[in-house]
Amino acid sequence: MVYINDNFTRLPETYLFSEIAKRVQAFKNEHPEAQIIRMGIGDVTLPLPKTVIEAMHKAVDEMATGATFKGYGPEQGYSFLIDKIIEHDYKALGVELATNEVFVSDGAKSDTGNIGDILSKDNIIAVTDPVYPVYIDTNVMGGRAGELLTNGKWSNIVYLPCTAENGFIPSLPTEKVSVVYLCFPNNPTGTTLTKSQLKEWVDYAIANKVLLLFDAAYEAFITEKDVPHSIYEIEGAKQVAIEFRSYSKTAGFTGTRCSYTVVPKECKGYLKTGESVSMNPLWNRRQTTKFNGTPYIIQRGAEAIYTEEGKKEVQDMINHYMENARIIRTSLQQAGYETYGGINAPYIWLKVPKGYTSWSFFDKLLTEKHIVTTPGVGFGPSGEGYIRLTAFGSKTQTIEAMTRITS
Amino acid sequence: MVYINDNFTRLPETYLFSEIAKRVQAFKNEHPEAQIIRMGIGDVTLPLPKTVIEAMHKAVDEMATGATFKGYGPEQGYSFLIDKIIEHDYKALGVELATNEVFVSDGAKSDTGNIGDILSKDNIIAVTDPVYPVYIDTNVMGGRAGELLTNGKWSNIVYLPCTAENGFIPSLPTEKVSVVYLCFPNNPTGTTLTKSQLKEWVDYAIANKVLLLFDAAYEAFITEKDVPHSIYEIEGAKQVAIEFRSYSKTAGFTGTRCSYTVVPKECKGYLKTGESVSMNPLWNRRQTTKFNGTPYIIQRGAEAIYTEEGKKEVQDMINHYMENARIIRTSLQQAGYETYGGINAPYIWLKVPKGYTSWSFFDKLLTEKHIVTTPGVGFGPSGEGYIRLTAFGSKTQTIEAMTRITS
Repeated sequence: MVYINDNFTRLPETYLFSEIAKRVQAFKNEHPEAQIIRMGIGDVTLPLPKTVIEAMHKAVDEMATGATFKGYGPEQGYSFLIDKIIEHDYKALGVELATNEVFVSDGAKSDTGNIGDILSKDNIIAVTDPVYPVYIDTNVMGGRAGELLTNGKWSNIVYLPCTAENGFIPSLPTEKVSVVYLCFPNNPTGTTLTKSQLKEWVDYAIANKVLLLFDAAYEAFITEKDVPHSIYEIEGAKQVAIEFRSYSKTAGFTGTRCSYTVVPKECKGYLKTGESVSMNPLWNRRQTTKFNGTPYIIQRGAEAIYTEEGKKEVQDMINHYMENARIIRTSLQQAGYETYGGINAPYIWLKVPKGYTSWSFFDKLLTEKHIVTTPGVGFGPSGEGYIRLTAFGSKTQTIEAMTRITS
Repeated sequence: MVYINDNFTRLPETYLFSEIAKRVQAFKNEHPEAQIIRMGIGDVTLPLPKTVIEAMHKAVDEMATGATFKGYGPEQGYSFLIDKIIEHDYKALGVELATNEVFVSDGAKSDTGNIGDILSKDNIIAVTDPVYPVYIDTNVMGGRAGELLTNGKWSNIVYLPCTAENGFIPSLPTEKVSVVYLCFPNNPTGTTLTKSQLKEWVDYAIANKVLLLFDAAYEAFITEKDVPHSIYEIEGAKQVAIEFRSYSKTAGFTGTRCSYTVVPKECKGYLKTGESVSMNPLWNRRQTTKFNGTPYIIQRGAEAIYTEEGKKEVQDMINHYMENARIIRTSLQQAGYETYGGINAPYIWLKVPKGYTSWSFFDKLLTEKHIVTTPGVGFGPSGEGYIRLTAFGSKTQTIEAMTRITS
């Protein structure tokens, strides 16, 4: 008899985005004339940079003739892309990496999910709260979450609240944990850690042999000097941190699919005997066994981002989104709202006015202003009392939405 | 302290292809003038069909302007592709599937590896022997393999020998098993099951609540009428089988990356209580949580294969490879060798002459004929005494190789 992984039966239905869709649809049915503006979803809207388009056309042409056709590539990614990543994304920050420490893949969602393959089921997992749901759900699947409690938390997961009260700076865990997911700039709050704040985490991880899973998918949106783009800017981080990066938001690759993960050879895990094991060959074995590489055409597209012209185009895209973020942030603040994020991230985290919950303020904005947002409680218990707005729309729609909210 | 998944430490180094590379390199160092022909690797060499190239150029252009730009797509794949799959690959066989029973992904290697996510660690796994190593290695990682024995087998895996003695038809397991991997047309032997032979497996699976993981990556190479292209041609198979398909070999997508997996809603797994659970929502949850879809551009390329022109081009490619297979098969047979496969698959499985092992015959062909093959024992204990030749080279090189072997 075939047994299923019964951890899947513990997962509740994904409620957040279907509930949003349901409420939006109900409102539309009653008010078909309403011009709804969507500021809830974290998907980009600007087309791909011209250099990326040109590089992909060229790569498609290479696939059309036997002499330049590409069959199986290295599962870890082509060195033409990895070399650019190391030079532009790391050497520029003073971080040295070897070619076989970078693994190109099809998305940070895949990699932050699949990383559990190389970790024991017995690890205690900590997450910041609110949190990107993939970190939780993949650990439920992996049998590390325990039971879902009535307060919305999982019994075996350690939650590190990030709220206005602590300036969105997670405290170091007071109980023993094995793995901590850190996403900075943060989704959903849009907040960041400074170098010295991140250093506390690295020092803690080294002292306690804790693994930090550092999701830097939004690093390209950082504008402030003291905010680290990579965890490896912090001394000693290579011993304790795996870093995830993505082209999705940076270069408009949400539908094009390319990302990469850095697993330094120094980064160690442990056997039950206490013996240390380098994480790098484990992830290499996972990827070479369960993955066959990112499409050649897509990797050539990603490579183009590192040309002078490509860098300029990407920066223009980011500037566009960050101008939206500025408009949202300043408009809301001028209207008396308390907001966070939006300076080093395309997300604005709004504290709902007194008397509202995440969902009731969501409903108010939907029904009165015809604006769709994301209720913060959907990202975890500490998200209650907040909503998330995203800066990925057009400037016109962003301005129109802010006019509606503030008028 | 962070603990690693210690199952990874049980995996031996991947020995086969590195050992081949080492021996080839050693020979080249001593004989730099030798014109080596590689018939060992299962990678395609013909460029992508023209219709695929055109479709991908068009899709790249769509990504270049805001009006047609595509961000996040459905994790399960676009319906434009899924609808074509259902119509051309299944309806044509008399098999009805719903849109949400087909999951587009980046490779059969990913899906045959990741399918373990939805299965309990406690299942007993059976594989045909010789076997595609990914089935074994991913179950080692998942903790289902036990210990590696000195005979090359894993203590908890049930091996079903496929050799000339049983006509490469695996016997039904005599012990209790939960999951059986079946790959037909088979890699590495190139052999197939007829409909009635496959029906025995489906009937057995239904009677014993066993899950069949049916890898049909080579179905496009089938030329004989009585060989099923899909396991769902067999009555009742939807209750017990998940089917994996790939464009890699069919349409030259080894470097382009697209495949799909069919998980019928009728297909059931069980909780420890004996309660049955549909596999379809489990795989849907796995894919939506740990995967963000195949690139839009690539899915448009795959869709083009289903046009009249695309079908013709793909058939021409397959005919090219199968003509190579015919040349290899008939040349070797005329020279007195015993061969299998090569009729419904691009692989020829050669029984080495008396007195040789897989490796010693590999060495003989390398040093005397300057031809690289794959020793059968690398695919499992029952592969000893065989070597695998692939039909993916050029016709000229294939003919030259056969002239060398038979002269």
